[in-house]
Amino acid sequence: MQKFSRAARAAGKTIALVPTMGNLHAGHLSLIKIAKNKCDLVVVSVFVNPAQFGPGEDYKKYPRTLPADFKLLRASGVDIVFCPSARQMYSESFQTSVNIRCLSPRLCGIYRPGHFAGVATVVLKLFNIVNPHVAVFGEKDYQQQLVIKKMVEDLNYDIKILTGKTIREEGGLALSSRNRYLNREEKKAAATIFQTLQLGARLIKRGERRPGVVLQALRSFLRKQSRLKVQYLEILNADDLTVITKLCTRVLIALAVFVGKTRLIDNIVLDIRGG
Amino acid sequence: MQKFSRAARAAGKTIALVPTMGNLHAGHLSLIKIAKNKCDLVVVSVFVNPAQFGPGEDYKKYPRTLPADFKLLRASGVDIVFCPSARQMYSESFQTSVNIRCLSPRLCGIYRPGHFAGVATVVLKLFNIVNPHVAVFGEKDYQQQLVIKKMVEDLNYDIKILTGKTIREEGGLALSSRNRYLNREEKKAAATIFQTLQLGARLIKRGERRPGVVLQALRSFLRKQSRLKVQYLEILNADDLTVITKLCTRVLIALAVFVGKTRLIDNIVLDIRGG
Repeated sequence: MQKFSRAARAAGKTIALVPTMGNLHAGHLSLIKIAKNKCDLVVVSVFVNPAQFGPGEDYKKYPRTLPADFKLLRASGVDIVFCPSARQMYSESFQTSVNIRCLSPRLCGIYRPGHFAGVATVVLKLFNIVNPHVAVFGEKDYQQQLVIKKMVEDLNYDIKILTGKTIREEGGLALSSRNRYLNREEKKAAATIFQTLQLGARLIKRGERRPGVVLQALRSFLRKQSRLKVQYLEILNADDLTVITKLCTRVLIALAVFVGKTRLIDNIVLDIRGG
Repeated sequence: MQKFSRAARAAGKTIALVPTMGNLHAGHLSLIKIAKNKCDLVVVSVFVNPAQFGPGEDYKKYPRTLPADFKLLRASGVDIVFCPSARQMYSESFQTSVNIRCLSPRLCGIYRPGHFAGVATVVLKLFNIVNPHVAVFGEKDYQQQLVIKKMVEDLNYDIKILTGKTIREEGGLALSSRNRYLNREEKKAAATIFQTLQLGARLIKRGERRPGVVLQALRSFLRKQSRLKVQYLEILNADDLTVITKLCTRVLIALAVFVGKTRLIDNIVLDIRGG
């Protein structure tokens, strides 16, 4: 992979990387489209990264569908699929980790300790292996793309980070490989997640500026759907994930819920500067 | 700096980096010589890195002698001197750090918590800024070069790490920018440091294989020099800094001592495999 990138760069080609854990859906494909529009060559990595799963999480059962992924990737005109094994990525004596101190221990990071260090470390490795000019991440994993952008800035990577909008089913449910864990009833219930975010957006657009009031309304709304168990629901500054007491900036509404045993996340960003 | 390296690489040139904190002496110059022999272009960074100094350490008084350094660097035929400010390297919102879990909390890392994370992070930044093919480190900072080699391996950097032998004064004292803190009496006393290492080497070469016995002899020897206060004296596996109960591999003898208020380190590596 490193040799390929070295030769491509020597030939004046630009390289875009789309890191994935496989089990590709329309969300991933939209990121690949962005990559193709931006660079001469597109590398998609497929790697279910053990370092970003906590104990008791779904590392083992995470869907691995490489043959189907290859079919989609071939159809989408990707140049290289990079799919290393866990042993290739992590030697027995592996001991290095990258931590983004302030952005990591919030939202998902509270409930998944070590998750963002695992993400940052593997993405840094992929950056060094693929040596891309551009890398593309999905906005569904909002905190993740923020962590990666900060890492790139702090560590002087000469890589442009682009993001792709969350792709949703007709009912509003954000596409995720984990949606396949849901049965029919659970899937119906999961539609409430995006409805909650939309309700928050409406309240804020109508002029509500007190985060506590918005959160109260959203919690009441969520409580009506008994199949959902909220892990977190927060309204934060979308730029640095700090707590805000008055809504007057770029605002993130983010939540994680359990639908049965399946944990789903979603978010929405509202820009109400000057509004 | 990044643009320079990109252009140099595009023109087929190889780049070597020698990271320093300035106040250059013959030790640094020997590393530059290695770099010049190996690559077309040599970049020397001069940066007193605040992140690797602990509270109460000598960050503020660390010798900064840029005009003299420039003179030496010009004479030694270096192509680029990269000397960023602390503010350029660390923005106000800087929050990323790189940790090498097992190698860091040993030897110096026990007494300088955070030191090797600070070193690894700044070296990673320099790697991303300078984008070298080769980087050269001194063996006087033995643990440091081991940490960097492990980081390069774990994070898939396509960079060859070379090391240069410790350069010593006639009396055996390892060259160090901190030697200038010593008065005449202290400097005389500091010669005991290398004598201790040499005594250890002699004992092992003569067949002693019990680290405890060697350490005991070295501690007795050091105790005779009342101006030295030992911080640590250890015999470890030179490859991974693990404790060994029988000397039968590559062996590191390393120590840190205070001479007055000045902390000095030194080490020696013996290869007794099959011996």
